[in-house]
Parts: sequence; structure tokens; C-alpha cells
Amino acid sequence: MNNFRAVNPQTGEEFGPEIANATKGEVSAIIEAAHAPEQTPALRASLLRNIAVALEEARPQIVPIAQQESGLPEARINGELTRTVFQVNLFAAQIATGRHLDPKIDLADANYPMGARPDIRKENQPLGTVAIFAASNFPLAFSTAGGDSISALAAGCAVVLKAHPSHPQTSRLVFAAIQSGIEASGQPKEIFSMVEGNDPQITHWVASHPKITAIGFTGSGGVGKLLMDLAAKREVPIPVFAEMGSINPVFVTSSAISQRNDALVKGAVDSALLGSGQFCTKPGLFVIPKSHADLFLSEMEKYLATISVGPLLNQGIAERYSAAITSLAKLSSVKVMSGNTSGAGIVVTPTFFIADWSVISAHPQALEEHFGPTTVIAIAEESQYEVIASALEGQLTATIHGSDGDSVAPLLAVLAEKAGRVIWNAFPTGVSVTAAMQHGGQWPSSSSHTTSVGTDAIYRFMRPVSYQGMPDSLLPDSLKDSNPLGLERLVNGVRTKQ
Amino acid sequence: MNNFRAVNPQTGEEFGPEIANATKGEVSAIIEAAHAPEQTPALRASLLRNIAVALEEARPQIVPIAQQESGLPEARINGELTRTVFQVNLFAAQIATGRHLDPKIDLADANYPMGARPDIRKENQPLGTVAIFAASNFPLAFSTAGGDSISALAAGCAVVLKAHPSHPQTSRLVFAAIQSGIEASGQPKEIFSMVEGNDPQITHWVASHPKITAIGFTGSGGVGKLLMDLAAKREVPIPVFAEMGSINPVFVTSSAISQRNDALVKGAVDSALLGSGQFCTKPGLFVIPKSHADLFLSEMEKYLATISVGPLLNQGIAERYSAAITSLAKLSSVKVMSGNTSGAGIVVTPTFFIADWSVISAHPQALEEHFGPTTVIAIAEESQYEVIASALEGQLTATIHGSDGDSVAPLLAVLAEKAGRVIWNAFPTGVSVTAAMQHGGQWPSSSSHTTSVGTDAIYRFMRPVSYQGMPDSLLPDSLKDSNPLGLERLVNGVRTKQ
Repeated sequence: MNNFRAVNPQTGEEFGPEIANATKGEVSAIIEAAHAPEQTPALRASLLRNIAVALEEARPQIVPIAQQESGLPEARINGELTRTVFQVNLFAAQIATGRHLDPKIDLADANYPMGARPDIRKENQPLGTVAIFAASNFPLAFSTAGGDSISALAAGCAVVLKAHPSHPQTSRLVFAAIQSGIEASGQPKEIFSMVEGNDPQITHWVASHPKITAIGFTGSGGVGKLLMDLAAKREVPIPVFAEMGSINPVFVTSSAISQRNDALVKGAVDSALLGSGQFCTKPGLFVIPKSHADLFLSEMEKYLATISVGPLLNQGIAERYSAAITSLAKLSSVKVMSGNTSGAGIVVTPTFFIADWSVISAHPQALEEHFGPTTVIAIAEESQYEVIASALEGQLTATIHGSDGDSVAPLLAVLAEKAGRVIWNAFPTGVSVTAAMQHGGQWPSSSSHTTSVGTDAIYRFMRPVSYQGMPDSLLPDSLKDSNPLGLERLVNGVRTKQ
Repeated sequence: MNNFRAVNPQTGEEFGPEIANATKGEVSAIIEAAHAPEQTPALRASLLRNIAVALEEARPQIVPIAQQESGLPEARINGELTRTVFQVNLFAAQIATGRHLDPKIDLADANYPMGARPDIRKENQPLGTVAIFAASNFPLAFSTAGGDSISALAAGCAVVLKAHPSHPQTSRLVFAAIQSGIEASGQPKEIFSMVEGNDPQITHWVASHPKITAIGFTGSGGVGKLLMDLAAKREVPIPVFAEMGSINPVFVTSSAISQRNDALVKGAVDSALLGSGQFCTKPGLFVIPKSHADLFLSEMEKYLATISVGPLLNQGIAERYSAAITSLAKLSSVKVMSGNTSGAGIVVTPTFFIADWSVISAHPQALEEHFGPTTVIAIAEESQYEVIASALEGQLTATIHGSDGDSVAPLLAVLAEKAGRVIWNAFPTGVSVTAAMQHGGQWPSSSSHTTSVGTDAIYRFMRPVSYQGMPDSLLPDSLKDSNPLGLERLVNGVRTKQ
């Protein structure tokens, strides 16, 4: 493959240094060299904190380059870097507690009812060297130092990061910050390695390498399924944690429209167009009540006329967007509502599609995820909402906009079976990073029931190991009698620090 | 397919009623009807306790039939039923605490450092209707009411159980006890359904049915891989929790032999021949030190002459055993040590194979799992042990027999990377059912990093769901402000019952 350069979405022009595609030999050498020393949670936490410091120090360099490479506004990039640094520190705080090791101790018991039991002790241990594939749409928070790679690092793994070719210089700056954090911690640089390129072969080489023990991925369903296929065909299959996006349906009740139509429409349009509609949590389907549809849609048309949407992240997204929009616009009985663009470069026209649910449901492509500034508004009787929800595929999120008087419990029950996160009176874009966050839903939105956002993301990259009848000196620290790490442990079924 | 009948391994003769193979239509109807009502953990726990009572009541009927169908001694079957009932009650006790729901609450925080966060609350919810494939070698503890099906039931799922054709009447008796426990709880019988047959097509129909959300399996690598393949090719792929067995290597140091050769040899042989060598945790490889090999082997020859081994579970296992033994016996430089059989019917000669590690390692079939009364003893320098361990595939268990003075930490570190359970100075057969138990290791011993034994087995059949900004009335009980279930919850990172 040829070398490649970054493209500025605001101009459509290449800029910055030429980036060479990694060869098969280089990929292999990087993976072979990858390794993470066994270490205490406290030491791993201090490594993460040093990375966070280095990222913050590099903010003045990172932000302008990430802006140029993504076409996203400065405020968004600054906020995303803040979120990225926050995430690193949150994982540091999590592992400093040692809670992720989940130590369990069952002491020997000669009178155990099913028969004498030996001393058994279990803790979570890191999987080894894992491969993380960076996303294009969050050049920081789901990229080089994003939630996937930092949760793997927090788990104690070595990370091999496949950089996203959409923002190569940003990736290099972030990688340099990570390396500087590693160096400040006096740890081996091979804890975190980076593979560069836009050659699709690289994905195959990384995912198929025998030393890789798991894959983390945020991106399209196509690549996610390819990774699952590669992982299943290996001599030793490995887990793939792929977050592949969804249409994130939003069900709106008539009482919600009656109570707050203006705010509702503004929130809906803003959520659909945020980041030029390039979020995996973008609402790609609004279901609105026939009785109040005109009210909602006329306000939407007015609001849409007042805003404008910036460029897309790269030419590939723009091409897929245009193809999808052209195809959807040809459907009969579908009304099109267009918006404005701002700036130059890789810009596309925001396009909303409006039709009765009976029309939408007859066209599977209207219920697929389309990256970019588009969404579908389906008009239906409120009595149909549960049936509509049941007809949808698995989702990252599902939302209800209603009011206190609405009887939405049955609809919510259907949505909770489909989605990883169900939302009341808010919009799905904007994913907070907390212990209770679930970012990952039923197929095809995700390849597993895990989360890629929030502190539980760490468990994707750990596996439990039990020690039976082991002398104290051979036990991991978390399981020793003296509890040298001072952890809360489950001892004979009781949580204790003793 | 024709009907079939049970075979008594002690006589090789068919007995009992004719069992009809389920048709595709019947399989489909059973799965379509399967459903579990949403209910409190307390109610689900009382269902499990009623099942345990019914199983205990049916003991006088179950034990003799299970004996006849398995050829296993009464004490073993009685003990296995005790274990099975214990397991049901253990899961009941676990879910009664509600701990498996793992409720996490992050309250809204306008000043959250990465940006204002909404109220987010997460709990685990059951997957829906799951398919469990019963094992032949534990007609009770890994069969109809075994750990796979009871952990799924405890999770709140509906279970469709594919009965093992090796013990059809036992399956019916246990199924009747489960149904009687369900009836005593006033719950719908479709919470637990059974599919009978020895037609391999049934496995395809069950695993491919769109309503099935996960598969639990204990058995051979061949069937486990088939299930993984079927699950991956579905329109909606589903997780497969397959426990496929392993050779469970046991490394013996010279000091262990010096200190306790007689007990060591007795333990080793007993563990290899327990249940006629038909345990997934059977030690299929002993690695012994060249310096003390003669001492160990001469004692082994003596001890082997004093014991005799009962029949195998079924003709299929006997045929695969004989083929494997015949093939291994042909290898040059391999010494064969034979034992005695007891009883009639499906009996085979216990056969141990002894050779230098260099010979064993050159023959991959010597490092495969062979069900039945056989094991491999590899002779090596103790300095080679780490290299030998590194060369092995993933294992359910790995064991070291040593003494306090041995420097086995590096060997243990390699083994902990391979196995789900590492054992010191004991034998791998005999898997206690506790919170800290891990029964599941690296590929190819298992298809995932989960455990199929112990209370953590429940998490295979649950998925996390987050609720964002949800009114209290719409939240699941575990997440309501008032904490009506009285659970310990993680609130803003702190464990509390408030």
C-alpha cells in the first residue's frame, strides 16, 4: 500500500506528514514485543495517572491538530480531551481500590454440606496482550487513549493500538503522551504500542496474531463482524468486544409534545445533528404520535432552518452518507426535510425523512444506522408503540419522551430487552462515564453483553483464576491471608477487609 | 430417527421405555412456549428451594435408575444427587440476597468533572430463554437439574433442556421433580422444558431457534465447537458457554516423591480412574522427574494391580476410548501399563502410557483428552517443567505436587495463564461448588472466560441494563430510591444499603 496523509475535512485537502502503512513484519514485531509486567494495582494506577498528566500537558498540541483532522469545533475537541483525561483518572481510581480483582476466598471446610471443601481463592487477572481498534468519530475519547485502550491498560494488559487513519497526527501526539506517562512511571514502553496504516490487511494481521488475546473495537457493523469472523477462525478463538452502533429509537408521547413541543424538537434535532450526526448514539429513529405529528414536524422544519451542520469526518463517511440518502429519498410516501451546511470541505446536506410507520417498516434500509446528519421520523398511533419497539433490532440505547401521566411501563419493558441503556426524557447522545453506565446493547449493536464505557469496561479484559489449597507464599497478593493490599474481599460469602 | 432406549452399561443391554426423538416441530413448539415471568429474587429463590425439596423426595426413585443407566456405584450417585440438591439450594441462597443483580446507582451530578451527569442506574437482567445441553458423565450434577440449567434458572431465565440420551429415564425423573417444584410454587411449567432424543439434528434445531438467547453446554470439544459454529451463523449470534474438558496436567516435583511417594501415587491413580476416567477434570498428563521416575512408576504398577475399574457410561465413549488406546499403544518408545476391570458390560482395560517428554511432545494425540481409564505419564527434567507447561494448550485445571522447599512460582505463573484453576498438592477431580470456584479455562478447555460451577455461573445468563433519568415508578425494584429489596448497592461508588 501507498503512504497516506491526513485530510482536513474543512478543506478536503491533505496535510501533514506522510504516514507509512505498517508491513506484516512490522505488525508482527510490534505484537511480539508487547508485554506488560505483573504489578500491583497501585503501580498500574500510578501509570494511568502519569498518562493523564502527560495528556493534559499535551493539550495545546493535541487540540489544534485534532480539530484540523476531524473538522470538529474547538470546544468539542477540548471537551473530548477533558473527558479522555477524566476517563484515565477514573480507571486509575477504580484499580487503586483493587475492587476489579474481585477477590473471593472460601476457606477449607471439612463439614461443607456437599462434602469437605478445600481452600479455594479466586481473583481476576489480565488477559495478556490485547488489540484495540480506534474509532474515527471520537478522535480522543474512543481512540488512542480512549475507553477501550485505557480499560485494557487498567486491567493490567499490554495494548496494541491500531490507530485510525482519519486522524494520524492526533494519534501520534496521544501515543507520545502515553509513552511519556509510561516513561515517567519507569515502566517498559512495550506496555502500549501503536500500529499505523489505512491498509485493510493490517486489521487481519493484528486480529489473527496468535499472541493477541482479545479485541476491543468501536466502529461499523461491517468491520465489527469481520473482526468476529477473524477471531472465530483463529486456531485459538478470542473474544471480540465490538460496539457497532445502532439507530437508538426515541418514542415520543402526545403528552410530551403537548407539554414541551419546542424544547422537545430542539433537543431532538440537536441530538440528531450533534457532531454532524456521527455518534453511535445518534437517534436515527423518532416515533411520534399521529395526533400531534403536525405540531412536532412544523416546529422541526422551523428549527432546522435556523441551524447549520459542519463537515463530516472523512470522505468515506460522506460517500456512504450520500448513497444512503439518495436511496432513501427515492422511497415513495416518504417526505424529505433538508437543512443547512456550514463551512467548506466534506460537507453534506442534513436530510430528515418522514413517513408513516407502515412505510418505514416496509423498508429495512430506513431502519439501518446511517452515519451523518440524517434521521427518520416515523408517524404512528401511540397504541402501536410496543409493537414497533418489538419489531426493532438490538440497540445501544432506547428513549421515551413522555410525561408523568403516561402508561409507558409495557413499552419500557420491551425497550429494556432490546437496549443496553434506556432513557427517560433526555437524548441518547452524551454518554457519561460512571460505574452504572452501560454502553453496549443487544445484537447487532454490540457483539457481547459487556460495556465499552464506564468502569465496568475493565472486566472485558480480565479472566478469573482460582487457586486451590495454595500456600500463602504462592498466592497473588489479593488472596493472601494477611490481605497486604487491604482489599474488601468476599470471604465465606461475607464482604470483609479481614 | 428411530426411537431409542436406555442401555445398562453393566450389561450392555437396552432397558426401560422407548424414547421418541423430538421432531423439528416439537422442538420449535417447546421453545416457542418457553417463558419465565418477571419476578422478585425472593420468589425465584423459593422456586429453586421447592425444586430442591422435590429432588430430595424423588431420591429413592432417581438413584436406582441413575445407577442402572450410568453403571456408576450407588455411593457415587447418592453423593452426586446430594451435590445437585446442594447446588440448587446454594443458588437459591445466592439470589435471595439479590447480589446477582449487582445494582449500581450514580446519582445526577451537575458538577461531575467530565460534565454534568444524569441519574444512571444499572442492574443485571435475565437473558430470556436459554438452551442447556446436558452432559453424560454426571447424570445428575451436570445434567437436567445440573449447574448449567439451575444457574440459568437462578438468573431468571426460562430453560429449554436437551436431555442426554445416555440416561433418559433419569432425565425424566429429574424433570418431573423440577416440574413438581414449579407447581408447588404456583408458577408456569414453561419455565423449564425438556427436549428428548439422540438425533443430532435436534442440537441444530435447538441452537438455531431464534428465541434462544444463550447456550450452556458441558461435553466434548467436537460438539462444543459445533454449537459455537451454529451460534455464530445465526441471524442474531448468541453466546455459547461450552465447557469442553482438558488433560489437566499434574506436575510432580522430586521432593514430593521423596516425601510421600505412596500417597502421591495412590492419589494420582485414583484421580485418573475415578468414575472410570470420565471426568472433564481427569488428570490426563502427569509430568514426573527423571531422577525419581522409577520410584513413582514402580509404586504405580503395584497400586494399579490392586484396583479395578467399572464400565464406561456408553458404547460411544467405549469406541472412542478403544480407538485412542490402540493408536497410542502403537507409538514407539512408549511403555504401556495396564490395569484390571470389574463387572461386565461396557468395560475397557485401564491403560497408562509412559514415555519421555520428548516422545510425548512429538505426538499431539498423546496430549489430547481421552475419556476413559487412561492417562499419560511424561518423564522430564524438573528444569524443563516451565517449558513443558508453556507448550500445553488451555486447561480447566493445572496442578503442582511439591513441597515447601520447591521454587515453583515461575511454573505456577505459567499454569495460571493456561488454566482456570491451579491446584497445590491435591488432584483436579472433585470440583467444590463455592463462590470462589472457577470451572472454565483457556481455549480449548472452554469457549469463554466464565465458570460453569459455583455461584458465579449465574452471570453467564444475565446482561446489564442501565436506566437513565428514569422516574422511580418505572425503575426495577433493585434500583428504586426506597431500596424495597433491601439490597447492598454501589451508590456513587460506595457500597451501602441506604
